[in-house]
Amino acid sequence: MVYRLIVSYNGAPYAGWQRQHNAMTVQQRLEEALELVLKQSVRVFGAGRTDAGVHARGQVAHFHLADSFPEQGLIHGTNHGLPSDIRVLAAERMCSAFDARKSARAKTYSYRLSQLTLLSPLDAPYTVALGQPVDLAELRRASALLLGRHDFTAFALAGGSHKDPHRRIFATSWRRQGSMLLFRIVGDGFLRGMVRSIVGTLIEVGQGRRSAEAIGRLLNGQPRSEAGPTAPAHGLTMERVYYPPGLTMTPPHRAW
Amino acid sequence: MVYRLIVSYNGAPYAGWQRQHNAMTVQQRLEEALELVLKQSVRVFGAGRTDAGVHARGQVAHFHLADSFPEQGLIHGTNHGLPSDIRVLAAERMCSAFDARKSARAKTYSYRLSQLTLLSPLDAPYTVALGQPVDLAELRRASALLLGRHDFTAFALAGGSHKDPHRRIFATSWRRQGSMLLFRIVGDGFLRGMVRSIVGTLIEVGQGRRSAEAIGRLLNGQPRSEAGPTAPAHGLTMERVYYPPGLTMTPPHRAW
Repeated sequence: MVYRLIVSYNGAPYAGWQRQHNAMTVQQRLEEALELVLKQSVRVFGAGRTDAGVHARGQVAHFHLADSFPEQGLIHGTNHGLPSDIRVLAAERMCSAFDARKSARAKTYSYRLSQLTLLSPLDAPYTVALGQPVDLAELRRASALLLGRHDFTAFALAGGSHKDPHRRIFATSWRRQGSMLLFRIVGDGFLRGMVRSIVGTLIEVGQGRRSAEAIGRLLNGQPRSEAGPTAPAHGLTMERVYYPPGLTMTPPHRAW
Repeated sequence: MVYRLIVSYNGAPYAGWQRQHNAMTVQQRLEEALELVLKQSVRVFGAGRTDAGVHARGQVAHFHLADSFPEQGLIHGTNHGLPSDIRVLAAERMCSAFDARKSARAKTYSYRLSQLTLLSPLDAPYTVALGQPVDLAELRRASALLLGRHDFTAFALAGGSHKDPHRRIFATSWRRQGSMLLFRIVGDGFLRGMVRSIVGTLIEVGQGRRSAEAIGRLLNGQPRSEAGPTAPAHGLTMERVYYPPGLTMTPPHRAW
């Protein structure tokens, strides 16, 4: 049997999603909590490997189980064994072909910026302070050039496991909330560090240090050195993963 | 000389604003940080005494100083000595009559609720989970009855220092953000525990356990026992304090 979990976490204290030898990760915490509930060790597979410090509202993970297990028990039992900065928000039994990463058709990431220098401690853990105004119209113009299928080599960090650097961007948006700016990007997948490199490069556009048109010229396999810096991890949140319909076996048991 | 600070804090680790003998408070942390900058001990006076666990985006405090001190130095020096969950966002020199509490003409508080049972760890520190849907139209109808000047005895916790239980409410609003509900209330002042008691009572209205009209009948000095429970502290944030114009001596030195 295959189960799907929707998992949210504050990434600040973790060395990312993926298990590591010398650092605590979300995957390890989740596997430890599941083991307490299921009385057996399980390996969970995430839809994406968020980097150290990156947050998630809707990370998706799957695992295999020989017998069925009640979904509400999975949710509440696992949360009981998790620290308060990781929460399972939903559990569903899926058809046996489901794979959190391979079945995914699209993902949404968000990035939160502030034009202020000093942030409220209520915002600071999830927001990057720019300390100067940015030109929202230019940000939107540059972001629109990302739409479609491109070679995103210029925005990929070394160490990703992808062979093909092409990805398709379905949508981008910039929303202003007071002095805050919220960027959202939806794509069929993202190379390692891609969203943060895009944001770092767009900030240069918003601050007038790079033209909006220059973004378009980076989308044909230019080297990483041609794009801007990688924006800090704590502004980034994995928001949602999208799957084709029909992969669910049971009606969703969501606690939300 | 009188200086005004705008202070934001995550209230979770603090026993409220006001200095106490056996617990750490925001006022104590702020006075300790100011002493390091000013090389003298100062007493700060807050616009309002937020309770244990209540957050602030725009708490206002004043203190007296014999000599002038550069505002930017005050902001950055004080923040250097503060833990990251308290931040001074602005400093201004005020006319000598300024008093953070007595000069205040109005305050805005917000309260954040979710209709979900399980919250993302990104929201949980600032949000109260209701676990069931509420009727937003009824909440708005009941909240409108609060407008104007009333005797709020039914919504006051014991231990407040006020003699007159009358307060004037200028505005209320409920905003939906996905499954979140954000309540805002603006008044000329609030009795101890008043916003949380109002929210606790409004929730009963939103859940159909009390009629909207019943709120109106509580506003003529009914005892505390007639109103609903006091909603949890961690959903409440002191957003802003309003003062009459003309109390500032220097142009504002805001880092935001």
